[in-house]
Amino acid sequence: MQQSVHESDVDDVTAYVIATARAARAASSAMARATTAAKNRALVAIAAELRGARASILAANADDLADAHRAGLDSALLDRLELTDARVESMAAGVLEVADLPDPIGAVSDLDYRPSGIQVGRMRVPLGVVGIIYESRPNVTADAAALCLKSGNAAILRGGSEARRSNQAIARCVTAGLEQAGLPGDGVQVLATTDRAAVGVMLAQDDCIDVIVPRGGKGLIERVSREARMPVIKHLDGVCHVFLDDHADDDKAYAIALNAKTQRYGTCNTMETLLATADAARRVFPRLFAAYRDAGVELRGCARTRALDEAVIAATEDDWYAEYLAPVLAVRIVDDLDAAIAHIRQYGSQHTDAIVTEDYSRARRFLAEVDSSSVMVNASTRFADGFEYGLGAEIGISTDKFHARGPVGLEGLTSQKWIVLGDGQVRT
Amino acid sequence: MQQSVHESDVDDVTAYVIATARAARAASSAMARATTAAKNRALVAIAAELRGARASILAANADDLADAHRAGLDSALLDRLELTDARVESMAAGVLEVADLPDPIGAVSDLDYRPSGIQVGRMRVPLGVVGIIYESRPNVTADAAALCLKSGNAAILRGGSEARRSNQAIARCVTAGLEQAGLPGDGVQVLATTDRAAVGVMLAQDDCIDVIVPRGGKGLIERVSREARMPVIKHLDGVCHVFLDDHADDDKAYAIALNAKTQRYGTCNTMETLLATADAARRVFPRLFAAYRDAGVELRGCARTRALDEAVIAATEDDWYAEYLAPVLAVRIVDDLDAAIAHIRQYGSQHTDAIVTEDYSRARRFLAEVDSSSVMVNASTRFADGFEYGLGAEIGISTDKFHARGPVGLEGLTSQKWIVLGDGQVRT
Repeated sequence: MQQSVHESDVDDVTAYVIATARAARAASSAMARATTAAKNRALVAIAAELRGARASILAANADDLADAHRAGLDSALLDRLELTDARVESMAAGVLEVADLPDPIGAVSDLDYRPSGIQVGRMRVPLGVVGIIYESRPNVTADAAALCLKSGNAAILRGGSEARRSNQAIARCVTAGLEQAGLPGDGVQVLATTDRAAVGVMLAQDDCIDVIVPRGGKGLIERVSREARMPVIKHLDGVCHVFLDDHADDDKAYAIALNAKTQRYGTCNTMETLLATADAARRVFPRLFAAYRDAGVELRGCARTRALDEAVIAATEDDWYAEYLAPVLAVRIVDDLDAAIAHIRQYGSQHTDAIVTEDYSRARRFLAEVDSSSVMVNASTRFADGFEYGLGAEIGISTDKFHARGPVGLEGLTSQKWIVLGDGQVRT
Repeated sequence: MQQSVHESDVDDVTAYVIATARAARAASSAMARATTAAKNRALVAIAAELRGARASILAANADDLADAHRAGLDSALLDRLELTDARVESMAAGVLEVADLPDPIGAVSDLDYRPSGIQVGRMRVPLGVVGIIYESRPNVTADAAALCLKSGNAAILRGGSEARRSNQAIARCVTAGLEQAGLPGDGVQVLATTDRAAVGVMLAQDDCIDVIVPRGGKGLIERVSREARMPVIKHLDGVCHVFLDDHADDDKAYAIALNAKTQRYGTCNTMETLLATADAARRVFPRLFAAYRDAGVELRGCARTRALDEAVIAATEDDWYAEYLAPVLAVRIVDDLDAAIAHIRQYGSQHTDAIVTEDYSRARRFLAEVDSSSVMVNASTRFADGFEYGLGAEIGISTDKFHARGPVGLEGLTSQKWIVLGDGQVRT
């Protein structure tokens, strides 16, 4: 579809999106059947195309950036939108990294004999057609295309309007790479329209699109969750906690609490609330709070925290629910492990929570009882990430329990079917 | 909730269902934390309660049956509703079998070190609260309660109105067993109202119910899929195929095609369409069709099938889509493996499909390319079943790809969270 359609040609958004979805469904069989060798050839070809098309990608991006400047978009958004030589190279390298990942498709596990004589196992298979709706970062176009391709899925990508030309330039590289490897060019399509209505039409194509992954701000994710007729792999809030237990090692507590908040402020796995027992707080807070202040972090604490350090601002109930994504931290002193777990249960978002302790039984209880997509002992919440977990890359982070949880890599874009090998067995 | 509420007390269905859902959510933490020993003690106690309460369960069932007779329900439904000494014993034995299954909860897999020094793995956890909506079989009450309990979930069960008294009698046994094991009685609740509006209210409680499993006819499943705000583990049509390849062993072809259709007619894994190459048809159909006719199976075939056997009725396009659940079989002669796979892709329901062949490469292609929840070589489709697959029991069969596919046992009622074990690591 997409290679012959230009923005100006898209008169009927509904018909265009439906045709794109049908083309994706049609391509999905060939994508599912593609050999590991063909998929890797396509990935290598896409990387080469991206490197070869660097000048035209940057030119398209410059046009997008000029429009964005004129429209007065803020500097954070402009930064996300901007491509450079290094960022194009990083996209190409990312695609090659996906080529190096093991192919999940066709892997058979647990092929065991049953008393009837049949052998029963499970074979990993693609989900089919993956729809990805994202905002300003054009690198998502290459990353998502690579992950969907390697996992044997067809993909429909819908990027933000501000990155339209950049995304189309990257899409041409993806299509060329697919075709060079003998795979259908429609295996990955980037919607050529940025009409907002296209998203609504896409979310209604549950006969052609098997799963939707929204990547962007809360508004986008909530809209997609509300409207999508197919399953959604989504990430809502990241209200992450670090709990400093009585039996925390002071140096680990200091290092982890500092890193979890200050290594990056805008990421979903950044700590937003620090919990500590009174004893841990007395030992660690003076040094830790000084470091937070050096880093420019505003502290909002409970009454017990303010009794230790009167410069801390009084936290309100809203602070316990807040995902600041900014240099602001809520701090609360709790009685013990049970109170910490209760706080996380009440205010947390089931994303990533960590305990710092040297106590074996409390570490085990925290791991078992905290119901979050990542639960950690003596490590920074910032590790909750597909690359750090060894997934190689991630299509997103899921805060749902169903299907995929936490960082979603290639495996989250697959399913397993049952296979039965017999020798003529019948059921009696 | 349910032990103190009787039908006559349920004035406000909405408030009652919401209170039940909240009680389930509140109980779910204790259910998730329950030790294997406690869960097994509860299952053993429930089985003992069922055996001990046999007389009162049968009395309640007799009242339900009397009403059903008066209401003129059909004999198939009456059969599903009826409990006997043997059926109550079979329920108790089923609950004990679940006690013997390994506990999936807390199992940690793939705990590997990463270059950063953290150790990353996955821990199996319950989904939380499982809602099950079912029709006339009262044994589902005990089966579903046992599976949800063993998988660490709280459950809300909503049975059919015709089995109301039977279900409540069984529910009392479940509650008693939970409490004897020190688990919350609200861990498994059976709705005391059979008001149809209760289903709608239940399907809206996505903050308290994590997944819904509808078990029943197509009308129920479609309604639940349409209205549920939470994920649904569902099974739609079972349009299952057997394909007799040129290289089929004639005796295996005969035995499998006969068993797949005639061993039981009303089950979702029964073959509904038989495909064969012309050569396989010529060799196997005469003997096979004679056996079908002996069994009373009506044959509806394509023109080429009717050219071989003129007594076969002409199939229409609708027959290829039909899930007869009856002694009727559609038969089509296809050119080759590709045509068989294309037919299954077009008309099948992605449930269970089998090839009969001695050809290694065709068997491999069929396994890889047929996109159904169970794909079989040289075995009857009737094997697609939780017990036959070694799951021990099944909560249902899923024809979706997302989360769980095919027979869903304990594992399908769980999810995996990431766990990270560190020694003070921070991200750089």
